[in-house]
Amino acid sequence: MRFGFGLKKKDKTGARSGRVTTAHGEFTTPVFMPVGTRASVKGLTPEELKEIGVEIILANTYHLYLRPGHELVKNLGGLHGFMHWDGPVLTDSGGFQVFSLCKLRKITEEGVSFSSHLDGTRYMLTPENAVDIQEALGADIIMTLDECTPYPADHEYVKNSMELTHRWAKRCRDAKKDNGQALFGIIQGGMYRDLRKESARSIIEIGFDGYALGGLSVGEEKGLMQEMVASTVEYLPEDAPRYLMGVGTPEDLVFGVEMGVDMFDCVMPTRNARNGTLFTRQGKLVIKNAQYEKDPGPVEDGCGCYACRNYSRAYLRHLFMAGEILASRLNTVHNLYYYTALMKGMREAIAGERFAEFKREFYAARS
Amino acid sequence: MRFGFGLKKKDKTGARSGRVTTAHGEFTTPVFMPVGTRASVKGLTPEELKEIGVEIILANTYHLYLRPGHELVKNLGGLHGFMHWDGPVLTDSGGFQVFSLCKLRKITEEGVSFSSHLDGTRYMLTPENAVDIQEALGADIIMTLDECTPYPADHEYVKNSMELTHRWAKRCRDAKKDNGQALFGIIQGGMYRDLRKESARSIIEIGFDGYALGGLSVGEEKGLMQEMVASTVEYLPEDAPRYLMGVGTPEDLVFGVEMGVDMFDCVMPTRNARNGTLFTRQGKLVIKNAQYEKDPGPVEDGCGCYACRNYSRAYLRHLFMAGEILASRLNTVHNLYYYTALMKGMREAIAGERFAEFKREFYAARS
Repeated sequence: MRFGFGLKKKDKTGARSGRVTTAHGEFTTPVFMPVGTRASVKGLTPEELKEIGVEIILANTYHLYLRPGHELVKNLGGLHGFMHWDGPVLTDSGGFQVFSLCKLRKITEEGVSFSSHLDGTRYMLTPENAVDIQEALGADIIMTLDECTPYPADHEYVKNSMELTHRWAKRCRDAKKDNGQALFGIIQGGMYRDLRKESARSIIEIGFDGYALGGLSVGEEKGLMQEMVASTVEYLPEDAPRYLMGVGTPEDLVFGVEMGVDMFDCVMPTRNARNGTLFTRQGKLVIKNAQYEKDPGPVEDGCGCYACRNYSRAYLRHLFMAGEILASRLNTVHNLYYYTALMKGMREAIAGERFAEFKREFYAARS
Repeated sequence: MRFGFGLKKKDKTGARSGRVTTAHGEFTTPVFMPVGTRASVKGLTPEELKEIGVEIILANTYHLYLRPGHELVKNLGGLHGFMHWDGPVLTDSGGFQVFSLCKLRKITEEGVSFSSHLDGTRYMLTPENAVDIQEALGADIIMTLDECTPYPADHEYVKNSMELTHRWAKRCRDAKKDNGQALFGIIQGGMYRDLRKESARSIIEIGFDGYALGGLSVGEEKGLMQEMVASTVEYLPEDAPRYLMGVGTPEDLVFGVEMGVDMFDCVMPTRNARNGTLFTRQGKLVIKNAQYEKDPGPVEDGCGCYACRNYSRAYLRHLFMAGEILASRLNTVHNLYYYTALMKGMREAIAGERFAEFKREFYAARS
């Protein structure tokens, strides 16, 4: 099946719902993609992800390139065969990790060279090999290599960085084989509205299967992030999916969807789960708190997840305090269920043209 | 349902098979009990344990007494309700952990006082409160408090220690309520045949629902352990279950079953799994070894476990090298499946009166 996107419904707020077709099945948007950094959504099996309602996952090119290596993954059936997940997968280009994890980073026109955070080995990512690596990994949606502009940075620096990202995007487009994988372009431009606009136009001009907003949620104030999303989305074509990279909190997702964003990913639900912070409709719950020591109730009343159906807050607190592996696992099940249910709720609200009402109820529940 | 044991079949070798009835269902013997130290078999859910074929699990009184506390567990439905496991559970008395984990241990006629390995708090275990704690935890089978005699130790020391264990056993029997829980007595006597015999007779004279062999696999040579098992089992009644505590390797299980032992527990399959050592019919497999880096085959050909049905050695090695939580989990699934299948194979061999043949094949496969 070739990649495709069909816009199904637009709510009067700007929120929209659609359906994406990939070589490994379809998913509905707006969608949240759990992060499976090293070809594993930490602690969970693919069967559990499906039971939770997950339709697409993300894996990190940088980590898999370093270990176990993209050729090994390719020879074991690509990411799908390797990790036993037969649904859609998206891989990032590795660019963000190089900029956030690596030392001795050197950016040239050619690409970015860096030392592995594992053992210091020197590697180089170029637009061409970022595409090659992602082709070997076999994801359904792959991303262009970009420079994730640091924040804060002055206008000139951001403009130069953005222009390099544009040249790299073009090289990714040229390197891309016609193999059924979709390639998404990434819009940069830092926290400057004029550059975001320029970047959107340049990336759209090159032409991609989808458009991502990169370089956000990197330390800027929430209002600034929202301004950048709002002012970029307006330039994006209606007929391609829009992906807000690395975002975010439940509030960020509600905001992003209202702005017309279709796809999101973030380590927050999985990482917070391992740290014992659980998401509920009423807000966050820190399971180690003494108030839950003897609490026989579920994490969230009315939640349909496996953890809430079968375990008390007291048991989950006990597991967490004891450092039991099952704590990470049950907490992750709950948080991903929460995120997945939140997206489903938004899709249904869009279908019913009542997104504004959904948003009011979302905020009312947590006040 | 009250506790009961029915011997179903005796093989000509001495191996035997039976059925134990408890307040939370039945299990067939010989059986291996996975260890769920802190009310969790590390990394797995009760549903997975059942899918693997596990019929009874063990939990540790010592750990649960210290954290989260037996009263808390009782108020949350006992171990069954707390950890969402509705099958049979056995708890030990805590004695072994006090002797292996605790400092500032002081043994008196009254009981044993010790400092918690968690925070140094002083506690005291007596025969009476060991029973009370296990009643609160609500296991189907509970154990008497014993002194786990150190090894090596001279005859006089072991004799005195054993006699204390007998007096404590009697006090446990007297403290035990008629509440449907079964109480097993523990035979000590170190590595002395005469003392093992004396201990068996004394414990049987007090009278219990089952008889356990304690103080073995504590550093002695394999042959000595085997001699002690063989020379103790001959004094045990036919109509009560026999439990070899804390044992052991697959070879130990085959030996024990041949001697007529019915129940076993050991952390080996679960702990080794987390350390990346996997049990197979052909012997142990250390998943981090470079030879498995690109190996597309399952851990064990023909194994029916979830891990072997869905993942390659290469993927399991990748997960292990990356320190992924899923590595512990999939490895544990495999090892418990191996142990459970081994016991099932032995039960079937006993039913067919071909245990000697089973044993030959067991050793032939690993040579």
